[in-house]
Amino acid sequence: MSPKKKPTAPDVAAVPGGSGPCPHIVIQDIRPAVDGGRRPAKRLAGEPCQVTATVFRDGHARICVSLFWRHEEERAWREEPMRCQNPGLDLWVAEITPPVPGHYLFTVEGWTDAYASWLDDFRKRVEAKQPVKSEASEGAAILERIAAAAAQKDRGRLAAAAQKLRSLAQQGEAALKLVEDEKLRSLVDRYQPREDAVRHDPPLAISAERERAAFGAWYEMFPRSQGTVPGKAATLREAERRLPDIQRMGFDVLYLPPVHPIGITHRKGRDNSLQAGPDDPGSPWAIGNASGGHDAVDPGLGTFADFDHFVSAAKKCGLEIALDIALQCSPDHPWVKEHPEWFYRRPDGSIKYAENPPKKYEDIYPLNFDSPQRESLWREIRRIFEVWITHGVSIFRVDNPHTKPLCFWEWLLSDITRAHPEVLFLAEAFTRPPMMHTLAKIGFTQSYTYFTWRNSRWELTSYLRELTEPGMMDFFRPNFFVNTPDILPLILVKGGRPAFKMRLVLAATLSPSYGIYSGFELCENQAIPHHAIPDDVEYKSSEKYEIRVRDWDAPGNIKDFIARINEIRRENPALRRLSGLAFHDTQSEDLLCYSKCTPDVANRLLMVVNLNPHRVVESMTRLDLASLGLSEAEPFAVHDLITGQRWTWRGAQNYVRLDPQQEPAHLFRIEPA
Amino acid sequence: MSPKKKPTAPDVAAVPGGSGPCPHIVIQDIRPAVDGGRRPAKRLAGEPCQVTATVFRDGHARICVSLFWRHEEERAWREEPMRCQNPGLDLWVAEITPPVPGHYLFTVEGWTDAYASWLDDFRKRVEAKQPVKSEASEGAAILERIAAAAAQKDRGRLAAAAQKLRSLAQQGEAALKLVEDEKLRSLVDRYQPREDAVRHDPPLAISAERERAAFGAWYEMFPRSQGTVPGKAATLREAERRLPDIQRMGFDVLYLPPVHPIGITHRKGRDNSLQAGPDDPGSPWAIGNASGGHDAVDPGLGTFADFDHFVSAAKKCGLEIALDIALQCSPDHPWVKEHPEWFYRRPDGSIKYAENPPKKYEDIYPLNFDSPQRESLWREIRRIFEVWITHGVSIFRVDNPHTKPLCFWEWLLSDITRAHPEVLFLAEAFTRPPMMHTLAKIGFTQSYTYFTWRNSRWELTSYLRELTEPGMMDFFRPNFFVNTPDILPLILVKGGRPAFKMRLVLAATLSPSYGIYSGFELCENQAIPHHAIPDDVEYKSSEKYEIRVRDWDAPGNIKDFIARINEIRRENPALRRLSGLAFHDTQSEDLLCYSKCTPDVANRLLMVVNLNPHRVVESMTRLDLASLGLSEAEPFAVHDLITGQRWTWRGAQNYVRLDPQQEPAHLFRIEPA
Repeated sequence: MSPKKKPTAPDVAAVPGGSGPCPHIVIQDIRPAVDGGRRPAKRLAGEPCQVTATVFRDGHARICVSLFWRHEEERAWREEPMRCQNPGLDLWVAEITPPVPGHYLFTVEGWTDAYASWLDDFRKRVEAKQPVKSEASEGAAILERIAAAAAQKDRGRLAAAAQKLRSLAQQGEAALKLVEDEKLRSLVDRYQPREDAVRHDPPLAISAERERAAFGAWYEMFPRSQGTVPGKAATLREAERRLPDIQRMGFDVLYLPPVHPIGITHRKGRDNSLQAGPDDPGSPWAIGNASGGHDAVDPGLGTFADFDHFVSAAKKCGLEIALDIALQCSPDHPWVKEHPEWFYRRPDGSIKYAENPPKKYEDIYPLNFDSPQRESLWREIRRIFEVWITHGVSIFRVDNPHTKPLCFWEWLLSDITRAHPEVLFLAEAFTRPPMMHTLAKIGFTQSYTYFTWRNSRWELTSYLRELTEPGMMDFFRPNFFVNTPDILPLILVKGGRPAFKMRLVLAATLSPSYGIYSGFELCENQAIPHHAIPDDVEYKSSEKYEIRVRDWDAPGNIKDFIARINEIRRENPALRRLSGLAFHDTQSEDLLCYSKCTPDVANRLLMVVNLNPHRVVESMTRLDLASLGLSEAEPFAVHDLITGQRWTWRGAQNYVRLDPQQEPAHLFRIEPA
Repeated sequence: MSPKKKPTAPDVAAVPGGSGPCPHIVIQDIRPAVDGGRRPAKRLAGEPCQVTATVFRDGHARICVSLFWRHEEERAWREEPMRCQNPGLDLWVAEITPPVPGHYLFTVEGWTDAYASWLDDFRKRVEAKQPVKSEASEGAAILERIAAAAAQKDRGRLAAAAQKLRSLAQQGEAALKLVEDEKLRSLVDRYQPREDAVRHDPPLAISAERERAAFGAWYEMFPRSQGTVPGKAATLREAERRLPDIQRMGFDVLYLPPVHPIGITHRKGRDNSLQAGPDDPGSPWAIGNASGGHDAVDPGLGTFADFDHFVSAAKKCGLEIALDIALQCSPDHPWVKEHPEWFYRRPDGSIKYAENPPKKYEDIYPLNFDSPQRESLWREIRRIFEVWITHGVSIFRVDNPHTKPLCFWEWLLSDITRAHPEVLFLAEAFTRPPMMHTLAKIGFTQSYTYFTWRNSRWELTSYLRELTEPGMMDFFRPNFFVNTPDILPLILVKGGRPAFKMRLVLAATLSPSYGIYSGFELCENQAIPHHAIPDDVEYKSSEKYEIRVRDWDAPGNIKDFIARINEIRRENPALRRLSGLAFHDTQSEDLLCYSKCTPDVANRLLMVVNLNPHRVVESMTRLDLASLGLSEAEPFAVHDLITGQRWTWRGAQNYVRLDPQQEPAHLFRIEPA
């Protein structure tokens, strides 16, 4: 370093990089990134995942950018060159396809492409017939540096090219031909030292899941209600007889409420009454009695062998079992005696039941996840999940996860999915958005949603816009249930059969994962005032507290309609993903018009749904043709996949009429006219 | 820990928190946050800065949230309690007001409010007339824990309250009165241990700047052109005579191109010609000759004493000096001999001049910021800024920062602003958005923008929407120049005087910082084809290469108009900030209608600008009344602050007519009718 004539103030900060190279490359906005990369983005194994990054440097030199990725348990990184998709925005892109479910890491590296930068200028000088002697010498020096870094077998060719370039210094065009040679370029690309390479650190994460994480039709049923004798509980073996019926409706997932022994102390009676009758079976969510707890099968349903048989029979019907896990205990749960330290205690030492003052839930003891003995509790819960995985359960519907610590779920879910990457979790968290989003970020595959309460055009449009924002889709996979044992929407009570069909079409076409709770196909909507929420209703004779025996082929059922909708979902890839949704205007507030398209617009569906089950609606559409890949001039066909009808349309404005007593919705496929 | 009966698999992950407390509090989305908090958000010293955060926990317990902040050189944190602004979104908010310019750190802490959570339930039980003996005992235990943490003087009161609560266990209402007592609550708030407190780490940063960082009208002029004898260069002393004229126009900042000695070798002649005549003064950006370099004053302009006098005279006229710093050298710069290692060299050892092949700029030697001797170069540059700060310069306009390493600027700017928090930097980076944004994030106060090339309604609307996005305003402060010595917009060439007035109104009302380059007030628009950009023009007889002497009161000048606009800017706080902008529709693509309001809508300005300098436009407005704090029914007055005219309007639709030959714009203040 040259001696300084004019000393600077001694407190000037040290120069960055010290005596090493000065960093030039800036890497920003790597996507997908959840919480700035601290959480994994959800993708599907076997599907290409696009990664983008803003990468640039000062000055005019050219840069190269690569994506590095690996499964978290691999040690070696794979390299994927990124291409500059938008030079004006310095946007670079590459795709990776995680081969199997699991957690993957990825990051981006950029470096200055000294050779290409030199070649750019060299070419311009040759084309302008300027002398290039000095520049040829610079280029030869670059080639020599590359040769020094090359493998033995290629070193000679690079060194020879450098020598030749020097000898051609007076012959610009010949020199240019030499340095633009494709074989030479590929050696340069392979060996050019990445002297100023900058790699983004820490790496970001992708959680690659299996298809069912994104797409599936769910059917919820109580096995004990699948019998044929009124008031008599069915066993799992008897419940197997329902499976073909569910298969015919086209469902993918069969979701069972808890199947464990049910508490006797303070058991709830019919319609949530505080006194159970002698024959009342109790709520499956009041878990545990002398026969066992979360790791047992209710003897009334059968044995573990029966459970295994049921899982296997369901599989033969194309149905995967989802099991409910509710981390709470009845007063009769074996843990109450064996591990009183896992519960909340009063000052007098007695165990606390659940309360939401002034309401008391004496049939339920909540678990204390903060207890000094929490490690043994958490590990026991981990073991219970393992038990059910061993018995063929690969989807868990988790009851009220938002009332347990997030750090518990993060610990549990990451441990389970590391060992069992195929296992999926549905969070039943009807709570405020930050908690719902965080549960999704820390490992829940899917989440229940507010769909059940979104009825108007504005409500549905704004909620779906929120769910389909790119940043949101990176971590939040909605599951649209049209009803649950706890939720009987008022629109079904008031709107009847047309409302049931309308809500089914909405759920099944707006969200790739959706579900119904059994009885929906029979348009069951007998309501009583809600026990806790003013002005709301709940199911009369709820299956939570009694055995229900139904005629599954009762008149007025919509089983064929459901089967057709599920068939359309399987046949049309646009309905298998959450993305590709666009809303279209109409003249009527009662009509919801929206489309789902695959990215290549090879599959285009257009839904027009009459949200009002009480009246016929006529209107003109105002289609956003561009989003459908359509032009103003060309006619196109709309083929109603529900009724089979077909019309030729043209332009944005087309007539629709929907009579809810006939069909409340058009489910059009757009086809060539 | 109880002995485990059923051993879990040995490879289950360790429980988080180990034997310590289980974390419950989640802190997310703290704002303002630039690049996730890694870069400081820009705010103003003395102005309240709102901080928001999403903070929540599992379950139903109550939480407390505090904001902690300090100047980066302070050690102790200040605490500001946050209030829950939106419980449905778990959104917490507090304000801090950085007292003086500088860098500040802040973070958010949350903890469970055990007392308030207990009190919530206790109150409900008392109100429901339930027995509360056990609960009173729990509350007393909480009070005892708080007493143990309290200062000696308050411990007794808390312990006494605990004892009293136990004694009132059978008298719910008396107990409730005791535990709701305000004095007791304030002791609880003060001493309650924050057992499960979670603090966001690392802290985030705010850069608090002085008013001029956000708001100012800039005037650019060449001091040497301020003389009265054609062809004769003015000295700084002579140039002082222009200052009152600039003051009368209402400017805040006087920006001078480089004032250093100018190179002789390869000096450019008039209109950018390669051969300079013997009297041609050369470009001020070809810096350095035998008289000195970046730390010298051109002898033709005067001495450092003259410079100091000029700075002081400007200050008396309310003008702050902004100096241009261009980090490049003429071949005659002293560094070329003293520090050849700071430049790029050819293989033959000669120093490289600037090139953009095939174009050559032989009058300029670029500096090599990557040279192995870069530390001495960087420190010398740091010293040069210090020299000019010592001579009263507190604003620097930095030439082409995007061609130097970002890490250099980050190092330089942070070192200077730490020592001189009042110093501001304007980045002249006409380049791609990622680089412009990053320069703003790493320390440049303001940036030149694309405003000069945005003319149509769509262009202006979309560009301003981008600039006024909240995340963007956190770091990017635009400065809207209507022209520069390098940029003569075609609309000024073609549109003449009406276009000059129109563009001035746009710049001065859309952006709180804006500027003109001298000659604009005379509507100078004589153009020649651009030397490098096809289909573009540049100034004929550019001052960059020759001395210009003008009649500053020439007929047709718009000095009074400029003075009035700058006066309006000072009188109306809505124009002093970038925020508060809303666009309003009209029937004509030629009209840009927009409003600027203070957050409290006490000051509301409505601009209607005819973007077409060639024709009269008549149209109806379609005001977004809600954004203006107006209702459909109430009439309101629009008071044109340019002409003094006043109309009474009502509702969204109102008639406007703008003749560009008279006034191209309405600059209305909305007032009571």
